[in-house]
Amino acid sequence: DLVAAAVQILAPSPQLLANKQVVITAGPTREPLDPVRYLSNRSSGKMGYALASAAAAAGASVTLVSGPTQLTTPAGVDRIDVNTATEMLDACQRVSAKADIFIGCAAISDYRAAAVATEKMKKSEDSDALSLTLVKNPDVIATIAKTYPQLFCVGFAAETQHLKDYAQRKLKDKNLQLIIANDVAGNKAFDQDQNSVTAYWHEGEKVFPEQPKRQLADGLIALISQLFNHAN
Amino acid sequence: DLVAAAVQILAPSPQLLANKQVVITAGPTREPLDPVRYLSNRSSGKMGYALASAAAAAGASVTLVSGPTQLTTPAGVDRIDVNTATEMLDACQRVSAKADIFIGCAAISDYRAAAVATEKMKKSEDSDALSLTLVKNPDVIATIAKTYPQLFCVGFAAETQHLKDYAQRKLKDKNLQLIIANDVAGNKAFDQDQNSVTAYWHEGEKVFPEQPKRQLADGLIALISQLFNHAN
Repeated sequence: DLVAAAVQILAPSPQLLANKQVVITAGPTREPLDPVRYLSNRSSGKMGYALASAAAAAGASVTLVSGPTQLTTPAGVDRIDVNTATEMLDACQRVSAKADIFIGCAAISDYRAAAVATEKMKKSEDSDALSLTLVKNPDVIATIAKTYPQLFCVGFAAETQHLKDYAQRKLKDKNLQLIIANDVAGNKAFDQDQNSVTAYWHEGEKVFPEQPKRQLADGLIALISQLFNHAN
Repeated sequence: DLVAAAVQILAPSPQLLANKQVVITAGPTREPLDPVRYLSNRSSGKMGYALASAAAAAGASVTLVSGPTQLTTPAGVDRIDVNTATEMLDACQRVSAKADIFIGCAAISDYRAAAVATEKMKKSEDSDALSLTLVKNPDVIATIAKTYPQLFCVGFAAETQHLKDYAQRKLKDKNLQLIIANDVAGNKAFDQDQNSVTAYWHEGEKVFPEQPKRQLADGLIALISQLFNHAN
């Protein structure tokens, strides 16, 4: 009847993630070379913040572990600010013990300086070249997936080539439940308000065509909650 | 009399740089390593943008050559956006031919990658270390001072130690008329709204105590116009 139909239309959207604890990482990391200089990448954090907003709207209790961004914390989201990959891992380890879902959307530097200079490095007068030794950072999402095997772990793969191949390899190698592949060739995706991605899981894949990041986040959260409920 | 006093109080501040062309660089540069990663530094651009605003308020025609920042272009200022040191030098060379004053406030990367990868670099499975070869960037302000010897050139020296010594050496080595020394030890200055600096020129020095960057910019523009008028 009409009243029932109206009630259904006016009802709030289903709380897909009610009572769920979700940890989301976002933004780049910054790896200092000295007190002034750093190594970073072009992630703006927009996709991760959109996911935090969408997860909170879906009823989840959300902790956002964020590298340096210029973005405002979404309403109802707890935010922890970090700079480096090491700091991001520490924060994620702390907050993931009671989490149900971990979404690693941050663009974490693969490498950091082998030694951070305590004073600003001076230009050498003698040589035009400088050799910088970098060492591998910890793999945050692989470490979290290993530490908390009960967690439903969602990764992101931002690649400029061999997107499907690299994404599916990461899904398997890092023991994730889902990976979102992001084509960043030709300045796509970075700092844009729109994006298109392909999601790969062990039994399937789904293409999300070009759309605003907040709308894309709603679609990804719907897929994540569907796969999470199927797995639990 | 009272009327004359009121007129004096209500009069606009003296147009110290009326009919003068001023070029100001601001912000960091970003030196790409590949399509995703870059080398940069912690400059927010706030001091350079405050100087552009203060110079425009003093009646100058201002061109702001800006690295990537999150700041709004000050009213009445022409802005050229660049990413790398090489792009910044090109833009400065173009706009400095007719300029009277050049203020190099940007924190320009001293080094860039010897080779920029066209695809996103993959983590090596074999090795935990990575050696990155950097080469020296052009020295923007020294090149501008040499190309346009008639320009009144103002540099900035951001240092964590030996501030006076390094600043005075830069003043002399780069053929500048004035250098503003900025102590950036212990997270001071970067992305802050307040700053304290010391200005050194060939015949003197002046300390500017801790104050809002826009107020500090007014003081620096007053000093620059005073020294510029003395020299011309």
